[in-house]
Amino acid sequence: MNPFVFENPTKIRFGEGAVSALSDEIVRYGKTVLFLYGCGSIHKNGVYESVKKQLDRAGVTVIEHSGVQGNPRLSHAREGVELAKKHKVDLILAVGGGSVIDESKAIAAGALYDGDIWEFYAKTARITGALPIISVLTLPATASEMNGFSVLTNDETREKWALGAAPITNPRVSFLDPAATVTLSAEQSGFAAADIIAHCTEGYFTTSAKELLPQDEIIEGLVRSVAVSMDRIVKDPADIEARASLMWSATLGWNGIAQMGIPGMGLPCHALEMPLSGIYDIAHGAGLSIITPVWLAEMAEVHGERIIRFGERCLGVTGGGVPAVVMAMESLYRRIGAPLKLSEVGVFDIDIPRCTADAFEAFRLRGVTGYDEARISRIYSAIL
Amino acid sequence: MNPFVFENPTKIRFGEGAVSALSDEIVRYGKTVLFLYGCGSIHKNGVYESVKKQLDRAGVTVIEHSGVQGNPRLSHAREGVELAKKHKVDLILAVGGGSVIDESKAIAAGALYDGDIWEFYAKTARITGALPIISVLTLPATASEMNGFSVLTNDETREKWALGAAPITNPRVSFLDPAATVTLSAEQSGFAAADIIAHCTEGYFTTSAKELLPQDEIIEGLVRSVAVSMDRIVKDPADIEARASLMWSATLGWNGIAQMGIPGMGLPCHALEMPLSGIYDIAHGAGLSIITPVWLAEMAEVHGERIIRFGERCLGVTGGGVPAVVMAMESLYRRIGAPLKLSEVGVFDIDIPRCTADAFEAFRLRGVTGYDEARISRIYSAIL
Repeated sequence: MNPFVFENPTKIRFGEGAVSALSDEIVRYGKTVLFLYGCGSIHKNGVYESVKKQLDRAGVTVIEHSGVQGNPRLSHAREGVELAKKHKVDLILAVGGGSVIDESKAIAAGALYDGDIWEFYAKTARITGALPIISVLTLPATASEMNGFSVLTNDETREKWALGAAPITNPRVSFLDPAATVTLSAEQSGFAAADIIAHCTEGYFTTSAKELLPQDEIIEGLVRSVAVSMDRIVKDPADIEARASLMWSATLGWNGIAQMGIPGMGLPCHALEMPLSGIYDIAHGAGLSIITPVWLAEMAEVHGERIIRFGERCLGVTGGGVPAVVMAMESLYRRIGAPLKLSEVGVFDIDIPRCTADAFEAFRLRGVTGYDEARISRIYSAIL
Repeated sequence: MNPFVFENPTKIRFGEGAVSALSDEIVRYGKTVLFLYGCGSIHKNGVYESVKKQLDRAGVTVIEHSGVQGNPRLSHAREGVELAKKHKVDLILAVGGGSVIDESKAIAAGALYDGDIWEFYAKTARITGALPIISVLTLPATASEMNGFSVLTNDETREKWALGAAPITNPRVSFLDPAATVTLSAEQSGFAAADIIAHCTEGYFTTSAKELLPQDEIIEGLVRSVAVSMDRIVKDPADIEARASLMWSATLGWNGIAQMGIPGMGLPCHALEMPLSGIYDIAHGAGLSIITPVWLAEMAEVHGERIIRFGERCLGVTGGGVPAVVMAMESLYRRIGAPLKLSEVGVFDIDIPRCTADAFEAFRLRGVTGYDEARISRIYSAIL
């Protein structure tokens, strides 16, 4: 048995039109709001309008900070910190996907810190306080709306690092309206699904002690939910019930519940993916669907039993061992539109020594053993 | 799609020896503690000693209030409120099973209220504040350790009513140590398992809209976890990993996660059970295992599709319709030592008109339709 502490105070408001309660929540946290969003998709899906209406209704002062990119940048977050300090904002309103919410955590913590926010990511400083965050989610994938994690890319060095400061950096309230996700492209949805599946399975595959029975059941159930939802979304992108299932699966997949009691979550596929999205700026979910099948094949001897169980319970694989599970996983990714090779996302050359060095360092920092440079480099050699 | 709001700030400290962090948590909430517990089982399983050690270490003033009974009594809770007010306690420490934690919520709210606590249960007053509660769980079943619910029995009228005031009445921190549960009798464990299964299935059986895919998966997974854990516990009551799975399944079964998005949770088996434990003072879990199979058979025409799905996915039933599921459910209860007839728990006569009137009123109050007096009375007639 592995002891654990679970604490997740984020309040979730889920459903069509959930945002109509946004002003009620905002006024509980203050009068000056930093309104953070991305590169304009919220202008297309109507979310910007409904959020603005709520901000007006709340009667708060609004400082807009737009332009958050996928793989959010340190420089943009630093600008947000400046704005938050200058205008003495009371809370951050993050409207978008995981990138926007991740960056909002950096700003929320940075606003109460005298040093530079990169110190939090480089682990030379610890977050001890943060402004309250309210999020309105438009792209379900990372569960950043219900956890304390944040990933930021240093634009100067291209290093991409993560931090976790739950519950300090958890959003106080997150609004999840599946209707806001029906305009997502097939590609965005497929990448998101690959990310959700990776969150669910990383610990599941690698753990040596899976004695807490509900955990395997929840993880397997979530993966099946994602697969069924995605099959429906591919057929009909406007299938709002399937969008709702995908959205709620994403939150449950990485809000901590499914991970409790799993020791030594090394997150190997995430560690191997981070150099890809960090260096080549590809979508994180795309990197994960590219890495995962190769990782499964590479780790067959170490994690074979768990991989085969997964194949049986989540992919309907009967017999054929790990190679059959790898094929079924590739087939799932193909079906949902997630890539299997770097070349499919426009990357035709890979700097294997550099990626290997970055991933090796990530494994070292997390204390994950079993990944020497030969193994890591073998994985990268197979993904072009 | 059914909109929902999920918020559960309770911090869970899970694992063997978890209680060693109790003093750290207590001192965060105050200096004077009302220590609430039951009728002595914590003296037998060593929990009293370890809690006392932690209270000493915290250096707090302790007011003991023991003697909480299964089906906790209004009169005992009122005494607790008196003590809390008289000694100006800062927090309530509830050590025991669901009964103790349920009563602690009444006391925590009552300590900040001028009127009588029964008003909260009779719904003539609303809880707007409560003292902080810390719980140490010794009997997993009700998930009271991670929800805002409380059930109290009025000793004068024998009425048994429930309230839910989450997150105000949620424990702030709950300690779950599976090692504290290995001394539970087979009977207690079986009753607890019946309660957990009922929590998981009440909404699952009755809902007409189960579009949110993860919810069915989680519920089915939890029921399978409970069944597997109980089969192991029956064989070896000291199987601590099985105890851990049962304990965590109980918390997940009724902490809200699995119920989100399910409309109109009428909780019919709970409504039918409450008069039994209220009037005859039997264990709540025992009442549920007695009621549920009869309820399944009675409601075959209304909820047949859901019942058959449940049989297939949770009990391995293939074919035979609802009657086959009822038989499999009875067989599960038999295996885990939960009763199927009132006579098995020492009740040889049942006041059908009174039980019917109480249950009818409970359905009316909850706005649940489809239960006329003939149907209710038919169910009670079949359980002796």
